[in-house]
Amino acid sequence: MLALTQGDPAGIAPEITVKAWRILRESGHPFVFVGDPALLEQHAPVQAVRYLDQGADVFSHAIPVLPLRLATPAAPGEPDRQNAPSVIESIRLAVELTQNGEASAIITNPISKEVIQSAGFKHPGHTSYLAELCHVPGQEVMMLAGPSLKVVPVTVHVSLRHALEQLNTELIIKTARTVADGLKRDFGLKSPRIAVAGLNPHAGENGLMGHEEQQIIIPAIKALQQEGLNITGPMPPDTMFTPVARSRYDVALCMYHDQGLIPLKTLDMAEGVNVTLGLPIIRTSPDHGTAFDIAGQNKADPSSLVAAIRLAAQLAQNRRNAA
Amino acid sequence: MLALTQGDPAGIAPEITVKAWRILRESGHPFVFVGDPALLEQHAPVQAVRYLDQGADVFSHAIPVLPLRLATPAAPGEPDRQNAPSVIESIRLAVELTQNGEASAIITNPISKEVIQSAGFKHPGHTSYLAELCHVPGQEVMMLAGPSLKVVPVTVHVSLRHALEQLNTELIIKTARTVADGLKRDFGLKSPRIAVAGLNPHAGENGLMGHEEQQIIIPAIKALQQEGLNITGPMPPDTMFTPVARSRYDVALCMYHDQGLIPLKTLDMAEGVNVTLGLPIIRTSPDHGTAFDIAGQNKADPSSLVAAIRLAAQLAQNRRNAA
Repeated sequence: MLALTQGDPAGIAPEITVKAWRILRESGHPFVFVGDPALLEQHAPVQAVRYLDQGADVFSHAIPVLPLRLATPAAPGEPDRQNAPSVIESIRLAVELTQNGEASAIITNPISKEVIQSAGFKHPGHTSYLAELCHVPGQEVMMLAGPSLKVVPVTVHVSLRHALEQLNTELIIKTARTVADGLKRDFGLKSPRIAVAGLNPHAGENGLMGHEEQQIIIPAIKALQQEGLNITGPMPPDTMFTPVARSRYDVALCMYHDQGLIPLKTLDMAEGVNVTLGLPIIRTSPDHGTAFDIAGQNKADPSSLVAAIRLAAQLAQNRRNAA
Repeated sequence: MLALTQGDPAGIAPEITVKAWRILRESGHPFVFVGDPALLEQHAPVQAVRYLDQGADVFSHAIPVLPLRLATPAAPGEPDRQNAPSVIESIRLAVELTQNGEASAIITNPISKEVIQSAGFKHPGHTSYLAELCHVPGQEVMMLAGPSLKVVPVTVHVSLRHALEQLNTELIIKTARTVADGLKRDFGLKSPRIAVAGLNPHAGENGLMGHEEQQIIIPAIKALQQEGLNITGPMPPDTMFTPVARSRYDVALCMYHDQGLIPLKTLDMAEGVNVTLGLPIIRTSPDHGTAFDIAGQNKADPSSLVAAIRLAAQLAQNRRNAA
């Protein structure tokens, strides 16, 4: 059974959860919502469960909910730090259920960094908290997966200037190993083909436009090839996302956030899914935020959450098949 | 009449010229090739002309050529610096013909920087040479135009590190003015909508991931808005190239090469056209290089050259209409 966290109750999480259930009850990808039933019950039938497995029988006629209680009723578009503990508890509990085998994977609804940090939460977002709960701090790697493309940015939520400072051979090696392991274990790829992007225009054109390719990236690729990884590059960043180029690799290892996120969102905007590699558990999430500005207006698009739930189910199945 | 330069005779220029003629003789976008007829005559009927206007009558049955002579016969895939003077003379002559009104626009076939520089040419490529010939050095701006998107990188063929150093408010202002003028004059847009990309992930998220948005980009946008330009931003780079986002602007002003070239080539790989703005003449070119590695093998795709010729014809028509 899949565990779906509550997310920020004042964002679009309740709305996209209901919409996702309406879509998925047909195709049979059951999940259990870990949160306050009051968030959903105005919009869809809801049924409380005590164990996740009970969700399977419920899912066709109601949203199964493992109930948590908010401190105060949620007002769409008006985040309230009083509810931060409930937001965090939903994540903690979903991870625990995954660790003890009740859940096969966790899908996280969007949360607000500002809200939970104002309540004393010390992590910048889900991912490092999940790594801590799983006792693998620092091992987490963000992958974005869409129908057309998978990308992993080696440096992530830092300024471009800071990304240039962070980038080094060890970081590329460590990230690529995690990516290769994750694609083997959960994506059913025996020898994942990893394409490494250059940092500079034309991948530096032999040093004419930057030296990071020679000094940082090529040494990492060579070391990883010697370990047996199926890895190539550095590729000129602007031509590596065409259909022909994409057909030659399973995942693009990118040097900075927008190098990977621009092509991913350009090609797969509504259906991009965030997958956290490097954890012992399977975790996916929609690739968007809380969207407080449109919460409660029935405008939210559930596509990314639906894709995240489907992908989590598929990864869990792959892992069962491999076991 | 359109003037098409010779390009490097050892690259794919002769092949794509012949292929483009076969396509365009049907649709009626006549051009005159300014170069050695020997490069083409093995593959297509060729007819020498003395004046470009003669090309109109020739074009349906032969490639009209304003003849130049190579110093030595060209061998596909084996560039020869002895032919560099002829490569350069083709460009010079085509510009002269455009300046004196015989040609309405110039389309340049790909050249090799290494070859022409080894023969004493001091420019890094076509564009700055064209600006010098047109007496507007430093005014040239590169735009890439495809069916889905137009992009202008503010910094271009430099390392990412160098791009961060080059980026400043004045450069953005100067580039945006040239873009607005060019789109008004040659693209028939009364008030071109310019979308400015942020530099950092999420456009810096209010300073959380970089300060260039506040310090460099926003001041440029405000100054340009006060001048009356229809300009918005800074936009989060990863979401500004989705179909909905693209429908809201005519051109994306990007902060570095790959920020613009990744989405352009991802969406419009084979049909991207390089347009030089800021010149008194109209100039387009295919968005690829000499491709010495596949020259003479009948593998080259003429799509970008065909698109470049068609766009040059359209821009020349727009300029005539506006006059």
